[in-house]
This record gives sequence, structure tokens and C-alpha cells, in this order.
Amino acid sequence: MERVEQHASFGGRQEVWKHASAVLGCEMKLGVYLPPAALAGEACPVLYWLSGLTCSEQNFITKAGAQQHAAQHGLILVAPDTSPRGDAIANDPAYDLGQGAGFYLNATQAPWAPHFRMEDYVVQELPALVEQHFATTARRGISGHSMGGHGALTLALRHPGRYASVSAFSPIVAPTQVPWGQKAFAAYLGEDRGEWAAHDAVELIGTATERLPLLVDQGEGDEFLAGQLKPQLLQKACQAAGHPLTLRMQPGYDHSYYFVASFIGDHVAHHAAALKGA
Amino acid sequence: MERVEQHASFGGRQEVWKHASAVLGCEMKLGVYLPPAALAGEACPVLYWLSGLTCSEQNFITKAGAQQHAAQHGLILVAPDTSPRGDAIANDPAYDLGQGAGFYLNATQAPWAPHFRMEDYVVQELPALVEQHFATTARRGISGHSMGGHGALTLALRHPGRYASVSAFSPIVAPTQVPWGQKAFAAYLGEDRGEWAAHDAVELIGTATERLPLLVDQGEGDEFLAGQLKPQLLQKACQAAGHPLTLRMQPGYDHSYYFVASFIGDHVAHHAAALKGA
Repeated sequence: MERVEQHASFGGRQEVWKHASAVLGCEMKLGVYLPPAALAGEACPVLYWLSGLTCSEQNFITKAGAQQHAAQHGLILVAPDTSPRGDAIANDPAYDLGQGAGFYLNATQAPWAPHFRMEDYVVQELPALVEQHFATTARRGISGHSMGGHGALTLALRHPGRYASVSAFSPIVAPTQVPWGQKAFAAYLGEDRGEWAAHDAVELIGTATERLPLLVDQGEGDEFLAGQLKPQLLQKACQAAGHPLTLRMQPGYDHSYYFVASFIGDHVAHHAAALKGA
Repeated sequence: MERVEQHASFGGRQEVWKHASAVLGCEMKLGVYLPPAALAGEACPVLYWLSGLTCSEQNFITKAGAQQHAAQHGLILVAPDTSPRGDAIANDPAYDLGQGAGFYLNATQAPWAPHFRMEDYVVQELPALVEQHFATTARRGISGHSMGGHGALTLALRHPGRYASVSAFSPIVAPTQVPWGQKAFAAYLGEDRGEWAAHDAVELIGTATERLPLLVDQGEGDEFLAGQLKPQLLQKACQAAGHPLTLRMQPGYDHSYYFVASFIGDHVAHHAAALKGA
């Protein structure tokens, strides 16, 4: 791990680190916000943030305004990049496939399979690295936006016990039923739709063994609401399964980080309550 | 005026507008944040924000997190671009001259003179446009960062009565004494140093006819502190002139928007107290 940026922020420090990822086979960057409590030597729980299509580790740390809330609640924020990166890594000219579009799963198909293993990276390698380099507690939360909201929901559902809290902004809740997900899953997982279901939050809710409460914010003015996001499918699945869901439809809000910034305080407080509780 | 972006933000709306500027002779963009009170039809005072070198209208609106505070206090935020723009406009390959580096003055020298009139734009054309298109009160505040901090201080000092409040982050307080200012002033104003002094906050303090209190935040870890910013020169000038100055040196903070975001709430509150008072 090598630190490549550091900036004082709300009494804490926003840092960017890079490291050679064994899982992904490339160099990866991540944003790490250390709240004042962490700088004072206190072990803090970690909230992982997964970003959406086209994003790097920079979008969340520069635009979401989450640091003030993490400072207040004493949470470390970790924001990884959204895929493996580099000239030696497979890519696609489209914005919604390849680099910047890892979809938080382990690809099984060529040319993606050797490097596109974002599930293993986010769930295993990244927390091991973070917990080795920073003073953390054992509790982890996970959140994200759009493709990253899909990541947060599916990784929490697929790894019971790994996360103590989960939330999402504008998540792709049913990737098997919408164009973004269908395109990515066909490329990364192949044509076996049984494999696809294992990475679809709506499908996973029915068989979840852990009833982790979901907090989801969705803008009603989101340009992708009807075509790609479909939060009503998550609502229906949660109702059928008795899975606790707080779905907040926010009038007028779009898909941008202006939306995330407006409600990130509520999400950080939601995670803090779970991560810092007894 | 044509609206080119709009995003719900903290109960209000972040917009971007473009218009043909008669003063600058080119198309200009500006960010406009309308707080919930403005959307409800209430006339609100306007806080103008001037950005630093290389910035467009986007940096402040995406990174500073000012909207939450403007929403709370009922201020409109207006953030113009930092220079005239376009292929037909003079430019320089350096980041600190030409497009993105207007220095908030009216250039008198070729090739800059016809278009680089940012003082007239910010002080005259822009508020006239804003006050025509939005429901505003008669009170204006002005703030900015780095080159924009220089702009805020000098425009407030050069136009007594025009602004009811002023503040700055990491301002270039004495451009006639530092490389950024000396390079820009030589290019835009020529070699007559008498002209330069009229755009230097430290020089202007001595002859100010209005004792508008200055609020200035400066990071002690700012990479430009010793070479370009020199806030102690402003402190000395204010002490000599009896001009009210609150200079806050912030340990560890650098020159980035992480610094601005950490303290923008205090600045918005400072302006609100002056702009919304009786």
C-alpha cells in the first residue's frame, strides 16, 4: 500500500492509496477517509462505498460530501475503484462494460475471467488490506450508488455475517431484468441465467438466510428509474419474503451525486447505528 | 439565458445556465443554486462565488458542498466561470494565464483586452442578469478561493456599497508581490505598477472607504502558502488601517476543495448574517 493523496477534511484526513491487487492482477486505487477519532488512535468501523458505472475511486470522495458525517459518527470510509484497470486489462469501448463497469462479481467468461473478480476483491482482499493497515473494529457496512447499489445489496445478501449494515442509492435491484445487467451478465457470466440469478438482489431476497434491514433511496426524477432501476421489484420481493426494507422515493431527485450528497447523511447515520451499537 | 443543467439538491435546485455575455463577447456558463425558499417564491439574497485558477463553473458546485448550507440559510449561490472561453478567445498554454485565469480584472493589453473583462462581468453584467432572472433581494455577498479569493476581496474593496459581505479561502492577497499575480498583471495590465496596485487587496486596504469585515480561512498545509498567498501581508495591512479582519489559520489543511468543503458552512453563515440581517 502506498499513499498517493492526503488532504485534511473535516478534522480528519481524506487519503488515496494504491496497491498491487493479487485478486485482480493489476494496480488498484482506493479512497480512505479517516475521521478525527481514527487519527486520535481509536479503532473505527468501516463503511465500504461502491461507485457506479464509469466511476473511479475519485467520484465519491470529491462529490458526495460524506466526510462531514463520517467525522461526526467516527466511521472510516473506503471507496474502491469500480473494476480492474490498465492497458493490460480487457476493455470495451462502451461505458457500461469492461473497465469502470465491473458489476461487483467474478467473471467466468473470456476475455474478462482472469482479472474481473470484483466480488472477491471487495469482499475479501480489500477488507483484509484495510484491516491490516488501519485500526478498525470488526464491523463492516456497505453502501453504493447505481451499479454500486447493486453491488452493496448483492454482496451483503451473498455473504451473510460479513456486513452489519447495508444501504443503497438508486440501485440496479434486478440486473437480470434490465439492459445494463443483461448486457454485463451475458458478457461476464455467459448465457446460463441460473448464474445470473445469484447476482440479482431481487432474486437473492427470497432465499436470504439473514434479514439485514435494507435502506434504499431512489430519486423519482431519475432518468434511469423506469428502464434500469425498477425499485418496485425490490419492494415486492421484500414484501413476499418478509425482508425489512425502507425504500424512500425522493421527489425530483435525479441519478447524480447531487442526489447522493443530499441524503448521504442519513445513510452514514444508518450505518453508524448498526456499526457502533452494542 | 438558457438552462443547461438542473438537479434537485438539499430540497432546492442546482442549475447551470449559459448566456451570451455582451461584456466578454462570448458564451458564458454559471452555476445557480436555488434554495428551497427560492423555489417557494421567496426573494433571497445572492452569494457570488469566484473560483480559482483552471476552474470552470463546475468545481464549486460539484465539490464544495455549499448547497446544504445555502438551503438552510435561504441564500442563492451564483458561481460563474473564471474567464471568457472559446476558440475565438485569446489563450495561453500555461494554466495560470488566459482561459481559466481571468483574475477578475479588465485587461488593457493585447491580446487580452477585448474579451478579458472579468471585473465588469462579475460586478455589473452577471448580477444584472441574475437579478433579472431570479427573485433576489438587493443584498449581495461575495466569496471565492485562491485567485477567486483575490477576486472577492478586490472587487468588494473596489466597489464600496456593492457587496454587503465578503470572505475568502486561501486568497492571493498581494498579487503584486507574488509570481501568479506578477505574471498575470504584467500580461493583462502591462508594466505600469500603479495599475497593478489598484487590483491588490493589500494595497487597497489602506485606502478603503468602507470597513467591510473580512473573513479569511487559510490552510497551514497549503502548498502555495509561502510562495503565492502570504496572508500575513493582509493581516499587517488590516492592522495598519484598522480594517476588521478575521484570519483563521487552519492546521493541516491544503489548497484543495477538501479544505473549502470543511469550512464553507462557516462562510455561508457569515454571509447569511450580513445578507439577511435587518
